[in-house]
Amino acid sequence: MTRELHLNLFIHARGHHEAAWRHPAASPLPLTDIRYYQDLAQRAEAGLFDSIFLADQLALGDDVAHAPRTWLEPITVLAALAGATSRIGLIATASTTYTEPFNLARQFASLDHISGGRVGWNIVTSWLAAAAGNYGGERQLSHAERYARAEEFMQVVTALWDSWADDAVLDDRASGTYADPRGIRPINHQGAYYRVAGPLNLPRGPQGRPVLVQAGSSDTGRRFAARHAEAVFTAHQEKAAAREFYADLKALAAAEGRAPEQVLVLPGLSPVIGSTEAEAQRIARELNDLSDPEVGRKRLSGRFGGHDFSHLPLDRPLSPEDFPDPGTVEAARSRTEVILGLVRREGLTLRQLLHRLAGARGHYTMAGTPEQVAALIEDWFLAGAADGFNVMPAVLPGMLDTFVAEVVPILQRRGLFRREYAGRTLRAHYGLPRPPVRPAPAARPDLAAE
Amino acid sequence: MTRELHLNLFIHARGHHEAAWRHPAASPLPLTDIRYYQDLAQRAEAGLFDSIFLADQLALGDDVAHAPRTWLEPITVLAALAGATSRIGLIATASTTYTEPFNLARQFASLDHISGGRVGWNIVTSWLAAAAGNYGGERQLSHAERYARAEEFMQVVTALWDSWADDAVLDDRASGTYADPRGIRPINHQGAYYRVAGPLNLPRGPQGRPVLVQAGSSDTGRRFAARHAEAVFTAHQEKAAAREFYADLKALAAAEGRAPEQVLVLPGLSPVIGSTEAEAQRIARELNDLSDPEVGRKRLSGRFGGHDFSHLPLDRPLSPEDFPDPGTVEAARSRTEVILGLVRREGLTLRQLLHRLAGARGHYTMAGTPEQVAALIEDWFLAGAADGFNVMPAVLPGMLDTFVAEVVPILQRRGLFRREYAGRTLRAHYGLPRPPVRPAPAARPDLAAE
Repeated sequence: MTRELHLNLFIHARGHHEAAWRHPAASPLPLTDIRYYQDLAQRAEAGLFDSIFLADQLALGDDVAHAPRTWLEPITVLAALAGATSRIGLIATASTTYTEPFNLARQFASLDHISGGRVGWNIVTSWLAAAAGNYGGERQLSHAERYARAEEFMQVVTALWDSWADDAVLDDRASGTYADPRGIRPINHQGAYYRVAGPLNLPRGPQGRPVLVQAGSSDTGRRFAARHAEAVFTAHQEKAAAREFYADLKALAAAEGRAPEQVLVLPGLSPVIGSTEAEAQRIARELNDLSDPEVGRKRLSGRFGGHDFSHLPLDRPLSPEDFPDPGTVEAARSRTEVILGLVRREGLTLRQLLHRLAGARGHYTMAGTPEQVAALIEDWFLAGAADGFNVMPAVLPGMLDTFVAEVVPILQRRGLFRREYAGRTLRAHYGLPRPPVRPAPAARPDLAAE
Repeated sequence: MTRELHLNLFIHARGHHEAAWRHPAASPLPLTDIRYYQDLAQRAEAGLFDSIFLADQLALGDDVAHAPRTWLEPITVLAALAGATSRIGLIATASTTYTEPFNLARQFASLDHISGGRVGWNIVTSWLAAAAGNYGGERQLSHAERYARAEEFMQVVTALWDSWADDAVLDDRASGTYADPRGIRPINHQGAYYRVAGPLNLPRGPQGRPVLVQAGSSDTGRRFAARHAEAVFTAHQEKAAAREFYADLKALAAAEGRAPEQVLVLPGLSPVIGSTEAEAQRIARELNDLSDPEVGRKRLSGRFGGHDFSHLPLDRPLSPEDFPDPGTVEAARSRTEVILGLVRREGLTLRQLLHRLAGARGHYTMAGTPEQVAALIEDWFLAGAADGFNVMPAVLPGMLDTFVAEVVPILQRRGLFRREYAGRTLRAHYGLPRPPVRPAPAARPDLAAE
């Protein structure tokens, strides 16, 4: 079977460069205007992307004075995008730590019905410390505790999605039979964190379950992804590291008894595209010149558990001693390690590091021509570093339009990317099977004998 | 100022009669198909209704074998309806008992942005005992406890919606100033049930806050409505009872320091409409003949805390002794009292009672001509029994179409109902002011003096 390249559009602010919101190629619409998101999803659909993706954080950033830290709530946005598009997959982030599993299972099942089977859920455990304060917490749960809860959360929501047989609804008007109760069962979950009786109060969606997406790359995150994820968003600065991650994740998935090709690995790629390399470099410089070092310092501090970087001069080379031990950071650990790797390898100054992170927060950035971008995509794809990419245009919609108009046709000519949608669901685009209803746990013979 | 009549379309199953889903005038679409809801909202908008409304329950009914107990999740549906309509208000039910206040405040603020200011929230405390089992509960919270939580919940969500000044977002691309932090403040709520730091991570919506709707009619429910609700859905079997409720609620609102005209009272009205009275009666009989007494018994049992009605013969007149004491029912108390009132006044048999409840679950039902329906609406409106109606068509879309085509023009000719939308928000349709941001609690002088 030929491997197929997959492309996801990651919609973030007015583009992934920190200063994109101020750039002339950025959308004129407010970030609370649904037309902005609808327009981007339609442009990505015109480019035959597999999906669009919305990230999320459950607290306001403390740098909102100088950074565009507002966006609409992802689940409501997906429902609004479903009606504005017809084929593209729609992925929203939602938290296992701060949502009731019954509510989350139900809203995603509803989205799957509303979109005709185009929904994916990006599973997060919410690393942002400030989020805990919005949900009754005195303190943030530890990284390990969040993942332990998430593991049980997955059991609950999967059981809820499987609580209706695919053919349970009969809707037989003549006989007055609406559903076959033998196809609907309670889940009676009683665990360490959750007690949920079920069944869900909504029939199974067109995809059975939403496509499960994950982005945690710590050891715990990888093991979680290997067990549950069908697509993984990941951040790498080098092809070698991406290949290593790719091989590791596929091996972990196989060890869990899963088919490795059913866990797609999609590294982030944030391209600044110009007709010539010089033009691309010029746009990249424009963006860096528009960025605010104080916003960058605050974001870096947020990544490192609130560590204070305000005393560091902007133009002296950094050393690892300027950073706290990543083992002490109860946040998005894998991303902090990517940043430390950059510092160690390249001897950047703080200003240079902030420019690098301003590009796409630690994801791979490049400035180049459409040919160069397509070459990188082909290279990583063929080298076993990626099943496709999480495309993070530096400026939206500007760099997305260039990508669709100039990079996609190259990928199509090389036989790497679709020329039309073959299927109608996100599972079809990603080449993933529709999961059958998992059988109920077998009755315990010791109880049955009573 | 002339009083204006308000009309809301209550979308439920394939119509409010229990057997509507089987009737030939009902929609052919599945109840999980978003087009069904979009089509109804568009028909109501064509009829210049103020709003549509979606009820909700957080557990599957136990009579799903013979009753259409499935629907999409209301918040996701509203987002999808926003794009399919442009003027009509959109009201969804959500629970204060089983939702995190930060999530609820955020999703409704997001919906208000997405719809351009057309959203309302029907506040419920979730009386259904089975819901507790889906949210970790060993037992259902008592009626009093649910309302105590709801009271604090309202403080939290109101403070979150008011945590951004209307002009806090500057989005000044030239200077790089995104927001004015002086207009954004934490809420630091610490109460008996909730601790929420805030601010919300989303700017204030076009309406400031969603329109607040409520439907609890118990004493506690009325006091809650008098404090918070801007529109109240209510169920009455007689004009006299409706007038009494209307006067009581307006007086309670005044006692809370609110303008009585800013609490709209909208009784339920479930009309079966025919060109002649005989035709209307015929359709009503068809519907009753399609209904299933066993479904009716189960629903009645659900209303009375699980009380068993299976031993009662269908055709002997009921007495109040056939029912449990409503004071012992921890459910939707006011509705149980309406039912007992019917039994006492009219000496119904169980079969007759089930037919009456099959119509619209205790709401006012009538079978008549468009003239008769319009006359009742005018009578109740002018008599101070209603500010408008929660229209609950017996069959959807059949009876809605008849209402729009034949009842609305009569109301317009009598100068009672709009001939075009004057405003663009639900607040504008309902004649409600846009709430200003409530000032933060004053600093305590004893602390300031330290």
